[in-house]
Amino acid sequence: MSEGDSTLEDDVGTVYLVGSGPGDPDLLTVRAAELIESADVVLHDKLPGPEILGRIPEEKREDVGKRAGGEWTPQEYTNRRLVELAREGKSVVRLKGGDPFVFGRGGEEAEHLAAAGIPFEVVPGVTSAIAGPAVAGIPVTHRDHASSVSFVTGHEDPTKEESAVDWDALAATGGTIVVLMGVGKLPAYTAELRDAGLDGDTPVALVERATWPDMRVATGTLDTIVDVRDEAGIEPPAITVIGDVAATRERVVEFLENDGERGGDA
Amino acid sequence: MSEGDSTLEDDVGTVYLVGSGPGDPDLLTVRAAELIESADVVLHDKLPGPEILGRIPEEKREDVGKRAGGEWTPQEYTNRRLVELAREGKSVVRLKGGDPFVFGRGGEEAEHLAAAGIPFEVVPGVTSAIAGPAVAGIPVTHRDHASSVSFVTGHEDPTKEESAVDWDALAATGGTIVVLMGVGKLPAYTAELRDAGLDGDTPVALVERATWPDMRVATGTLDTIVDVRDEAGIEPPAITVIGDVAATRERVVEFLENDGERGGDA
Ligand SMILES: C[S@@+](CC[C@H](N)C(=O)[O-])C[C@H]1O[C@@H](n2cnc3c(N)ncnc32)[C@H](O)[C@@H]1O
Ligand SMILES: C[S@@+](CC[C@H](N)C(=O)[O-])C[C@H]1O[C@@H](n2cnc3c(N)ncnc32)[C@H](O)[C@@H]1O
Repeated sequence: MSEGDSTLEDDVGTVYLVGSGPGDPDLLTVRAAELIESADVVLHDKLPGPEILGRIPEEKREDVGKRAGGEWTPQEYTNRRLVELAREGKSVVRLKGGDPFVFGRGGEEAEHLAAAGIPFEVVPGVTSAIAGPAVAGIPVTHRDHASSVSFVTGHEDPTKEESAVDWDALAATGGTIVVLMGVGKLPAYTAELRDAGLDGDTPVALVERATWPDMRVATGTLDTIVDVRDEAGIEPPAITVIGDVAATRERVVEFLENDGERGGDA
Repeated sequence: MSEGDSTLEDDVGTVYLVGSGPGDPDLLTVRAAELIESADVVLHDKLPGPEILGRIPEEKREDVGKRAGGEWTPQEYTNRRLVELAREGKSVVRLKGGDPFVFGRGGEEAEHLAAAGIPFEVVPGVTSAIAGPAVAGIPVTHRDHASSVSFVTGHEDPTKEESAVDWDALAATGGTIVVLMGVGKLPAYTAELRDAGLDGDTPVALVERATWPDMRVATGTLDTIVDVRDEAGIEPPAITVIGDVAATRERVVEFLENDGERGGDA
């Protein structure tokens, strides 16, 4: 075997767990943009969005978001594929929507890589949980309105006994609540939050495809937001922002330039 | 007055509320890097850190973080100065550490600008609240350990009656708790969290100057972290991460390349 063919441990590639930001290519970090350019292969799912994915040459893209019906669960497949490519000596970007460690299973991938002895680097990104509200004119914290903000998954069924999300406790924090993966279960968790004592008049905003060219925003209250969602036909991916800060939008939107460029009210 | 001298409303400049990320220039967004380059003036405080501030030409930098003893409070001064510069027709970047809407008073600036009729754009950034833990190998959410994460300010005195932060409720969420501005009050809020029922063995990590060349990480538990802080001499700016996810670091750090490059354990 010639030196060039060597596949010793030394030749193992690095895996980069990279956040893409919410979708606007200008919200990629400088490091993410460089790594996408220099990587041998980019493993991704759909969440980075069409604008960012469209810029990656076909020949180095690998979509790992499609295998739901396959032999492995998508996560097991992805974990395995990352190790395989790194052992071939490839420089591998694992590109995730938003930030890789916010409901992105990046933690599991990091642990899997470390257990397999693969060097990895984390490249944080702009999370949709903050940027989604922000580009709609909504600050997740505010000196007068919110001294905490909680990000939570809406994916779980809150009526299930074993739900890991404690909506009572979240309501009791008095801070902003940002729900990811929360379009479908909106009726269930808005009801939970009212039962937990949040006022039905609490402002709520839905931000769909934040920073994408077809971004839309819909606003209401805990009492009205389910109807607002249905009338506007809001679909995933979307962010739900619950709390007084959501009312900031109406005070600033006339002068907010983000909206004008990239979408508007639903 | 010639046309060129006109200072009509039409000639008002735009203000960009821009997040710098946690300090590593490579974690600027593409948009932030471009705006810093093209802006007429950049208003900043110290938080973006020496590497990013060092790249901005002196002649367009304006430090608004220094005026604590001045005629106005810093925030009033900044609000006023943003409007003044925009009315001169300048393109103004208001550069803030991390994300502008996470404990950054960006919401107040947005409202002030809108009230004054100044067009503005929000450019979200990578927040230290997520990136600080991440570059230390800690995911703020995890499928097995944390289905929510709360960001909270440690700046308030939690023993004060009027404290807006409800540590009991935060403990009850069962999710990760990330404290910003939380070095000084660490003894007070760790005590509050134990009183609220969190286990003294709950893992805690402190990440000082995350992504800066002299970044440091110190780890312990709710019971030990105050001593750990004192022995390591951890100082602001630092992030406190509380929850099972903080233990991820020890499982992955050997293969984590972020640390190796830019600092290490305290
Ligand atoms: C699996 S989570 C991943 C979150 C991602 N890691 C982040 O930090 O943004 C997927 C959810 O993120 C939210 N999301 C991601 N990108 C979004 C966007 N551009 N606009 C609105 N919501 C988005 C939606 O709530 C979606 O259901
Ligand atoms: C006024 S808050 C601003 C937070 C900022 N807007 C953000 O999103 O990161 C200041 C606090 O942010 C945290 N912080 C900011 N940059 C940091 C860094 N590079 N490393 C650790 N903590 C940082 C510290 O807790 C600091 O006390």
